[in-house]
Amino acid sequence: MSKKANGEENGLISRKSQSPDDLAVLAVRSLVADLCNQHGTGHGGSAIGMAAIGVALWKYAMRYNPCDPAWFDRDRFVLSNETPGHASTFLYVMNHLVGYDVWTMDELRGYASPKTNGYHTISHGHPEIQIPGVEVTTGPLGQGVANAVGLAIASKNLAANFNKPDSQIIQSRIWCTTGDGCLMEGVALEAISLAGHLALDNLILIYDNNAVTCDGPLGWINSENINDKMRAQNWHVIDVLDGNYDVHTIVAALDLAKTHRGRPVFINIRTVIGVGTSTAGTYKAHHGGIDKDSIAKLKSEAGLDPASSHVVPPAAMEYFRGRRSKGEELQNAWAAEFERYCQLYPDDGQQLKARLEHSEGQAVAALKDLDSSQFLGKATRQTNGAILEKLWNVVPSLCGGGADLVNSNQIQYAETDVFHPLVSYQGRYLRNGIREHAMASVANGLAAYHPGTFLPVTATFAVFFLYAAPGIRMGALSELPVIHIATHDSFQEGQNGPTHQPVEVDSLFRAMPGLTYFRPCDAEELIGCWIHALENHKGPSMLSLARDPVGHVPNTDRKQVARGAYVIRELKDSHLTLASCGSNLHYAVAAADVLSSEGISVRLVSAPSLDLFEVQSAEYKASVFPLDDKPVVSVEEFVATVWARYATASIGMTGFGYSASNESNYDRFGLDTKGIVEKVKNYLGALAGAGARQSGWRQL
Amino acid sequence: MSKKANGEENGLISRKSQSPDDLAVLAVRSLVADLCNQHGTGHGGSAIGMAAIGVALWKYAMRYNPCDPAWFDRDRFVLSNETPGHASTFLYVMNHLVGYDVWTMDELRGYASPKTNGYHTISHGHPEIQIPGVEVTTGPLGQGVANAVGLAIASKNLAANFNKPDSQIIQSRIWCTTGDGCLMEGVALEAISLAGHLALDNLILIYDNNAVTCDGPLGWINSENINDKMRAQNWHVIDVLDGNYDVHTIVAALDLAKTHRGRPVFINIRTVIGVGTSTAGTYKAHHGGIDKDSIAKLKSEAGLDPASSHVVPPAAMEYFRGRRSKGEELQNAWAAEFERYCQLYPDDGQQLKARLEHSEGQAVAALKDLDSSQFLGKATRQTNGAILEKLWNVVPSLCGGGADLVNSNQIQYAETDVFHPLVSYQGRYLRNGIREHAMASVANGLAAYHPGTFLPVTATFAVFFLYAAPGIRMGALSELPVIHIATHDSFQEGQNGPTHQPVEVDSLFRAMPGLTYFRPCDAEELIGCWIHALENHKGPSMLSLARDPVGHVPNTDRKQVARGAYVIRELKDSHLTLASCGSNLHYAVAAADVLSSEGISVRLVSAPSLDLFEVQSAEYKASVFPLDDKPVVSVEEFVATVWARYATASIGMTGFGYSASNESNYDRFGLDTKGIVEKVKNYLGALAGAGARQSGWRQL
Repeated sequence: MSKKANGEENGLISRKSQSPDDLAVLAVRSLVADLCNQHGTGHGGSAIGMAAIGVALWKYAMRYNPCDPAWFDRDRFVLSNETPGHASTFLYVMNHLVGYDVWTMDELRGYASPKTNGYHTISHGHPEIQIPGVEVTTGPLGQGVANAVGLAIASKNLAANFNKPDSQIIQSRIWCTTGDGCLMEGVALEAISLAGHLALDNLILIYDNNAVTCDGPLGWINSENINDKMRAQNWHVIDVLDGNYDVHTIVAALDLAKTHRGRPVFINIRTVIGVGTSTAGTYKAHHGGIDKDSIAKLKSEAGLDPASSHVVPPAAMEYFRGRRSKGEELQNAWAAEFERYCQLYPDDGQQLKARLEHSEGQAVAALKDLDSSQFLGKATRQTNGAILEKLWNVVPSLCGGGADLVNSNQIQYAETDVFHPLVSYQGRYLRNGIREHAMASVANGLAAYHPGTFLPVTATFAVFFLYAAPGIRMGALSELPVIHIATHDSFQEGQNGPTHQPVEVDSLFRAMPGLTYFRPCDAEELIGCWIHALENHKGPSMLSLARDPVGHVPNTDRKQVARGAYVIRELKDSHLTLASCGSNLHYAVAAADVLSSEGISVRLVSAPSLDLFEVQSAEYKASVFPLDDKPVVSVEEFVATVWARYATASIGMTGFGYSASNESNYDRFGLDTKGIVEKVKNYLGALAGAGARQSGWRQL
Repeated sequence: MSKKANGEENGLISRKSQSPDDLAVLAVRSLVADLCNQHGTGHGGSAIGMAAIGVALWKYAMRYNPCDPAWFDRDRFVLSNETPGHASTFLYVMNHLVGYDVWTMDELRGYASPKTNGYHTISHGHPEIQIPGVEVTTGPLGQGVANAVGLAIASKNLAANFNKPDSQIIQSRIWCTTGDGCLMEGVALEAISLAGHLALDNLILIYDNNAVTCDGPLGWINSENINDKMRAQNWHVIDVLDGNYDVHTIVAALDLAKTHRGRPVFINIRTVIGVGTSTAGTYKAHHGGIDKDSIAKLKSEAGLDPASSHVVPPAAMEYFRGRRSKGEELQNAWAAEFERYCQLYPDDGQQLKARLEHSEGQAVAALKDLDSSQFLGKATRQTNGAILEKLWNVVPSLCGGGADLVNSNQIQYAETDVFHPLVSYQGRYLRNGIREHAMASVANGLAAYHPGTFLPVTATFAVFFLYAAPGIRMGALSELPVIHIATHDSFQEGQNGPTHQPVEVDSLFRAMPGLTYFRPCDAEELIGCWIHALENHKGPSMLSLARDPVGHVPNTDRKQVARGAYVIRELKDSHLTLASCGSNLHYAVAAADVLSSEGISVRLVSAPSLDLFEVQSAEYKASVFPLDDKPVVSVEEFVATVWARYATASIGMTGFGYSASNESNYDRFGLDTKGIVEKVKNYLGALAGAGARQSGWRQL
């Protein structure tokens, strides 16, 4: 490298004559710069700063096959430092250079394009899991780190269950780049602590230490000793002092990391954001186009015409594209080994093959026939515990666990089935610790490992899923099947009071696209929820469950759950319809009985999933909630907004709850039988025979 | 101490003859046990384990006055280890023993009572800020730690601005107890990192290290070296090896902590949960009644009749109640000093006095007269930046800042106004780092310091407030005025794509009781939002703001914002009403114009706050959305559920967004003028003259 580059003044930049590695680094930078400038907007600084890391990873360190992005035993790469660094161009350019089929130069040209008139590209602003060569969707900081922990658990677990002394059929390592922002996010901090506790030595976290964030120098907002912090959490730490150009040293660090055992590895690599450009080393390098002079310099250094764009030096292209045949070799060798493995260990081979696809068919069939009457009088959290225990034995992909409330959540597990180095990595039960956010995002990583191989469950109180909401959102956006078990979903939280009573949390999860939110009233419906959740391969589900037993609801039907809401008491000449779900339906049924005894006849609707109901046909919806003049009153101990789509009036909450016994709270907020009866009567009186729909929706 | 206690086998328990301190510790344990048993349910193990810490704090270390819980310069105590430890009985018993007026034995008897028939007590399941002697509401783990950081910032800032070399009028220290669970939560980890960065040496975090969580031993879920981890984050660390009985040593540690400078202090105190009871040292001690034998033993050790309950040994009562006169002395001395201060420094005295109450009256008056036309054509985030800048100069309580996106959020601040030891603690601008969750919870702590003294603002992209949601919820529940500035609230997020487009996040915040969610369409309305937010002393507000400029909306009116929604185009014989807000209103107005030109006349409603509209009178609501047969169509680029209360049909989102230019996204999802026009026409066609309300709500 003959020319001087900006950013060198911090003394981190080494000098040497241009090698193939150097040229490769410059080729990456040049192409990243083109992407940032092609549509006048983009984020290139971080990607430019990480170019040498990219070369070290994609050319040397990672085990993957650009010809088959879905190869089961590939190493997984997670780009967690997506915002504020916006390093997606890093991943896209690397995927193009090493020759992933879909990552053509044309697709790169789509990055940051306006995408008008139906124009489509896979080069999204942030990487999206649906695209080959992208392991997980990232963008919101910290999520990728937790996903990587989930991926590492997945690989460790498969290795422990399937590897043999003479055949290491699972070798996948997880590589994750992270940045200054990521490492301040709670979700990453939780996941890092968990990874250290679990001693995940197949996880290598690469810190792109450019010491600059969106607003300015890192020192403005953080001054911790990150290496010491990682060591205190049981991580190996490796330092690389110049990560800008020195591919050789980075490769040495990555190779060293592969040999470390008993702890995950943190590689702290100093880089200069936007190195070689006029904004190098400053927050301005995060975003925006790159000036002409800087571009010209980058091009010249790479031996390119300064006025050219989207050109890769042929030598560099050859250098990178060698990874295609290398990838084929790796995968072919693995395939041969797997064949040998299947001959040596036919049962294990069979089992592993079964894990390559979704495997819950048999369990679903069993659920369809399961006698729900055995659970009569039990709280749905209890029934759920029993169902999960049954499923656990017949669905090998089931895995995961709770966040330190599993006795309350009623999740059973065997001590011998715990995933932990001091027990075994063969276990499927994961003790997440009191780390709700990481729990959800780790679960996403497990689910992302390979479609169907892992079906993670998580568990905590309903209200604490709010801590995990950004992770749950990413799972929904990424179409990852994860089953979230949310117990204590109501006033049955009782004495814990308003901090624990989730009056508005359902509003988020019911609005969240891609997540199916269930609130079953009994075992019969809960079985239907599980059937739907198991069969849903395109997104997460949440089961909102009650703490305490409640009475019997007649006519509930697992087969109707998939329709979201259905009539459980039909009456031709009713005065009104009451609709409810979960614990509240029991009170609604009792209220209907009282009202009927007083001459007000009531239809009853059970609505275990408003999400599923909303997508039913208009005809079906009108059959459940007739579009006549009669009132439809919803009953639920949550903020009632979600019901206004169907109900003419709602009995619900308008404030937070209260620390008291269940009984007194249902009374206090008018949600017990007496309260419902009274509110319905008042409503009917106020309507005075006027059309209920015509009178507008009312909060009762 | 003569008798042997359970839990001693771990070797942590020291022995000595019974001193007044020992008796005090036993008195605490005995009373906590009574509270746990009085109604057959409760959480006592953590409180019993922390008894000696309680004695050390309340008898010796803390500066407070039980006779005046609102004394401005008191030390603040935060009980963060509330769940799973459920240590509220710890706080309640200490408050009773030292003689807070409201904390009578009768109130203690109310703990865990069913509270039927209107029975009321201040002894809630978790501490609630509305009760004297409780500084912040806690329960969900980790929140208290972040609140404590906010309180410490508040005290530091006041001290820096008002203390003089000869008069230290602000001395308030912040004491916070935390536990194994708290220290795994992301929000606490973010706040700890921030506190170390800010070198808050007035903050003392006391770790009740009982090494047990709800599910089992801590070692099951965590194995980090917490002391090293804290040191790496710039905290002083002090160890106490026996925290069960040894009040003297704990006091020594607390006193030492007071002398430490330049860093916050972490005191790692080993305790045994439920020490002295049959479940000591196990997870079973977290919850439930305490067995008779254990109770009898606790009583006997305290010299009480084993069958007695709710009795405090007289010597212990005298010992604790001495803190009343001591508290009066402390406060009287402070009051005298403050009088001297006001004579020496009349201007500062005046200013400090003004900070003892809400002080935004003048600013509100100015806002009422502010010319909004100067902001014409600016994005609401830009206008907001300008308004905030004006307010910052005239509202001394304003403080806070963003989470590393303030250039994007358009928050201006002076480098000299940054709160940081290397700048000054006088600054009011807080660089939160990339710690959204802590940002919200730290803001709660600032607001909780004293009513009106601090009015915190926070800022990040709308979607990232989901990371902060549990903190925002706690602020709403705690009725703390904080103003959350949520920019980039729409497709105007554009290229960042679905990870950054908050299609469902509003559903949470609009459903959250106590939080006022605003989505103004222009500067005129934004001014109205700020007026409301400043005048609201009973809860937080969120301003949802647009990234990009949009056109002019006629007839917007700041005075109407308080009504939530209002008519901006009235027509007697309209065919339908279009209602919208934020960026979307501009498209709705344009669509109305197109429709009108085609003979379909359209009323227009601007709805800057559905929260405020929902609590208007039925008459007013019907004047905005007439209850006739005509369609009311809402337009917003979010999941539309929230509108179904008022609209007969909604144009909105049913899935996540897309990474593309704004223009192409508005087109893609049918939310531009053309899309709105088309959908409205299709809707009118489908209705075919039928009553719109009668036809049920529809998603268009």
